[in-house]
Amino acid sequence: MSRSRRPGPSTRVRVAEVTVGPEGSVRRHEDRLATEEPLEVRLSWPGRPARRVAVTMRTPGHDFELAAGFLHGEGVLTSADDLRRVAYCTDVDLSPEQEFNVVTVDLDRVPLRPPAERYAGLSAASSACGVCGTESIDDVLGRCDVHLQQRWDGEVVPLDVVAALPDRLREAQRVFDSTGGLHAAGLFDAAGAPLVVREDVGRHNAVDKVVGARVLAGHSPGVPLLCVSGRIGFEIVQKAVAAGIGVLAAVGAPSSLAVDLATRAGLTTVGFVRGGRCVVYSTPARVGV
Amino acid sequence: MSRSRRPGPSTRVRVAEVTVGPEGSVRRHEDRLATEEPLEVRLSWPGRPARRVAVTMRTPGHDFELAAGFLHGEGVLTSADDLRRVAYCTDVDLSPEQEFNVVTVDLDRVPLRPPAERYAGLSAASSACGVCGTESIDDVLGRCDVHLQQRWDGEVVPLDVVAALPDRLREAQRVFDSTGGLHAAGLFDAAGAPLVVREDVGRHNAVDKVVGARVLAGHSPGVPLLCVSGRIGFEIVQKAVAAGIGVLAAVGAPSSLAVDLATRAGLTTVGFVRGGRCVVYSTPARVGV
Repeated sequence: MSRSRRPGPSTRVRVAEVTVGPEGSVRRHEDRLATEEPLEVRLSWPGRPARRVAVTMRTPGHDFELAAGFLHGEGVLTSADDLRRVAYCTDVDLSPEQEFNVVTVDLDRVPLRPPAERYAGLSAASSACGVCGTESIDDVLGRCDVHLQQRWDGEVVPLDVVAALPDRLREAQRVFDSTGGLHAAGLFDAAGAPLVVREDVGRHNAVDKVVGARVLAGHSPGVPLLCVSGRIGFEIVQKAVAAGIGVLAAVGAPSSLAVDLATRAGLTTVGFVRGGRCVVYSTPARVGV
Repeated sequence: MSRSRRPGPSTRVRVAEVTVGPEGSVRRHEDRLATEEPLEVRLSWPGRPARRVAVTMRTPGHDFELAAGFLHGEGVLTSADDLRRVAYCTDVDLSPEQEFNVVTVDLDRVPLRPPAERYAGLSAASSACGVCGTESIDDVLGRCDVHLQQRWDGEVVPLDVVAALPDRLREAQRVFDSTGGLHAAGLFDAAGAPLVVREDVGRHNAVDKVVGARVLAGHSPGVPLLCVSGRIGFEIVQKAVAAGIGVLAAVGAPSSLAVDLATRAGLTTVGFVRGGRCVVYSTPARVGV
């Protein structure tokens, strides 16, 4: 079972492709699936040994970005200056299969905000979070510097730029064509040019990866536009607010709590961006509406 | 801020619907969003006071089913006979906003399998789970009674029945038409007739709700067919295996780890079920391929 190489973003598998009905057919062939494996993120800082802070099911690749982006969204990591090292774990207790499934982030300083209390006794249900009701929004607004959104005051991103983002996201996707199973997230400049695009089986992971890519490169993740291929849930807005994004666009629909938080934080959200149409849910002035 | 009624499955909001381009238009109107709120699940049994075991972002409605289905998938709750009570929490410390966001499950006996160790020190990343690599599959196979799948040995569900499930799922969806933002899951009998269909902003929650609906009604959740509107991730297969499902069908693609687990557990997985076509990934004999 030992594995000497890193898992790739897609995995080969034998399948039976079936056309149903009287004229039906069965074609057996090799196909590619999006790889899904767990990633454990460990965190240390001076005086504190590495401790697990998260486990997520993700598509391997850009794992350091995923870890950095996740910690940035949590308010634990503010910039690349905070980092001493990001590395795959060399724990001797790890089996070879796990070698590339554990990333340790060593901070150079005690974080201004330690990993959330909510990691200390909780849950691993999917789309789980440790937040609760109204408190959650207050917590997020307290945690993220919502003044980040104020940098966009007075700036307008034309909606035709926003409307073109999903196509640009798809153009930039490479794995999707071969597996059909990945979510994408992309950061774009005010003219709609892609800055970084990442994919993952988990849509939150794709957002963490684009944010982490900017942070690890020493840049601010607070760019004008973030586009996601799926829906706009509360946690996607949470990550966009923490990153300091101006406009969050999506092919799918937002949820009620997502729009609540976006409205309070001053983030523009645009959903159902398809075929030259879209729906603006919060802070419409930033897209000239 | 006090709220005297339960949150509903959808929430009204003012939006701007925009058609982009030289002939563009802006139409401001009221729209409906899928409601997203946190649900905290607490668990107690004789001699143990209630303790939080999970928090998930969910669409309100069928909350007791969600709690029961989640605990069934974890192997904590095996049937309705284990239950003393499922109720919204009456904790005096809860604010009115949280009243319908906390469900307590009281077991009548000490569970055969206590809530997983992984809930004791972990993570709340989305699509987070406390599993790790190969161990995770062994853990799931140990936890779930994989012999459940053997009940389907020798039985064949025709693929034309499977191919019709997504349409039947959509027919049974009510909220989707008004919000466009909900995932669906449905349990079906061997002829493709729906037994129970539920919706949620979280696709794992939708599966927990259909499983929990069966369990709370005193029925086995181990029915021939489960259909989901999204993709087949590892955790969806985990839940299907724990429930004792015969065939898991989806409109989207499976992940690599999902197919690994399904193959080892003897669950049939069918993806890309669209327009009379589909792709069979595991245990094909059960659908006659």
